[in-house]
Amino acid sequence: MHLPEPMLKLVESFMRLPGIGPKTAQRLAFFVLKMPDKEVLSFAEALHSVKTDIMFCQECQNISDSPVCQLCQDGSRDHSIICVVEQPKDVIAIERMQEFRGKYHVLQGAISPMDDIGPEDIKIKELIHRLSDERIEEVILAMDPNIEGEATAMYLSRLIKPTGIKVTRLAHGLPVGGDLEYADEITLAKAIEGRKPL
Amino acid sequence: MHLPEPMLKLVESFMRLPGIGPKTAQRLAFFVLKMPDKEVLSFAEALHSVKTDIMFCQECQNISDSPVCQLCQDGSRDHSIICVVEQPKDVIAIERMQEFRGKYHVLQGAISPMDDIGPEDIKIKELIHRLSDERIEEVILAMDPNIEGEATAMYLSRLIKPTGIKVTRLAHGLPVGGDLEYADEITLAKAIEGRKPL
Repeated sequence: MHLPEPMLKLVESFMRLPGIGPKTAQRLAFFVLKMPDKEVLSFAEALHSVKTDIMFCQECQNISDSPVCQLCQDGSRDHSIICVVEQPKDVIAIERMQEFRGKYHVLQGAISPMDDIGPEDIKIKELIHRLSDERIEEVILAMDPNIEGEATAMYLSRLIKPTGIKVTRLAHGLPVGGDLEYADEITLAKAIEGRKPL
Repeated sequence: MHLPEPMLKLVESFMRLPGIGPKTAQRLAFFVLKMPDKEVLSFAEALHSVKTDIMFCQECQNISDSPVCQLCQDGSRDHSIICVVEQPKDVIAIERMQEFRGKYHVLQGAISPMDDIGPEDIKIKELIHRLSDERIEEVILAMDPNIEGEATAMYLSRLIKPTGIKVTRLAHGLPVGGDLEYADEITLAKAIEGRKPL
């Protein structure tokens, strides 16, 4: 490709991102070339800052720009419920709902023997440590509904139940707005299994 | 959105790029968070470098990392033909073909009264200056086949013809591999107009 070195390097950097192929990367690089200097510099600074200023909250292990994240600092939230999720993205999804007012715990992964990820590789120790707080009454397991998520939920449930703290799991069933005929067999089976009296 | 400040800024920066909405921007930001430090730093540097190290070739006005670009420095190219294009991307497209061995001139735009872009806003003056070189025998006008491109080609043709230099224009017609029934009326009319004896 007949592009000057700095452009080639930018195209290569864009290509490392997921879902961005050579054509899109080139289009983005040309777009950056025409962007105002200030915006490009703030883009470069943002990239830098994500790598230097982002840490994990001492309490919930979510990403944060301070030792204790904003959600954990929020005194108005219910300290008696902890919702355990796999990733920071899951916290965003649950917060978007604006229904849950408890606290979170981010495992930063799920148990997956296939990928050689065991219980000690994710933030389970930190969760157990938090459960020694007497105020905690319930732990909601909100792992992804897949094999790794199920395995992690099962492991945590066995670990927490003996302490007497209530352990719950998100319901499985038909997605709202979905079409019954398109539901897969396992989802449908879970929906029937979890049917409720009206 | 419950994201730390540095992540929010990166999401915003990604959202300024064309074709990247809030969901993709968030996905990319989380990807960057997990990328090796080195790659992220080289990404930030590449952004910076595009804004500071890219200049325009003194001769052909293409983007370059040196005062005279690699193509213009290449002595093996035919100095008697100049292919005039609108954008640096067009040079890449023509070079990809590996057929053209002449030189280029990048106008950095096209005449467009609607957008208030006149002949003095693009690199026409620089092109005319180059034509004073006696070796030049032909100018190929390779503007985009749209209204602005046609207007620019027409303007350049009237300007260059009196100098006696041969002026040519890329052929219009059916794209190779295309389907006749899907060709639009104007393309089809151009294809008939430009028909050749076999």
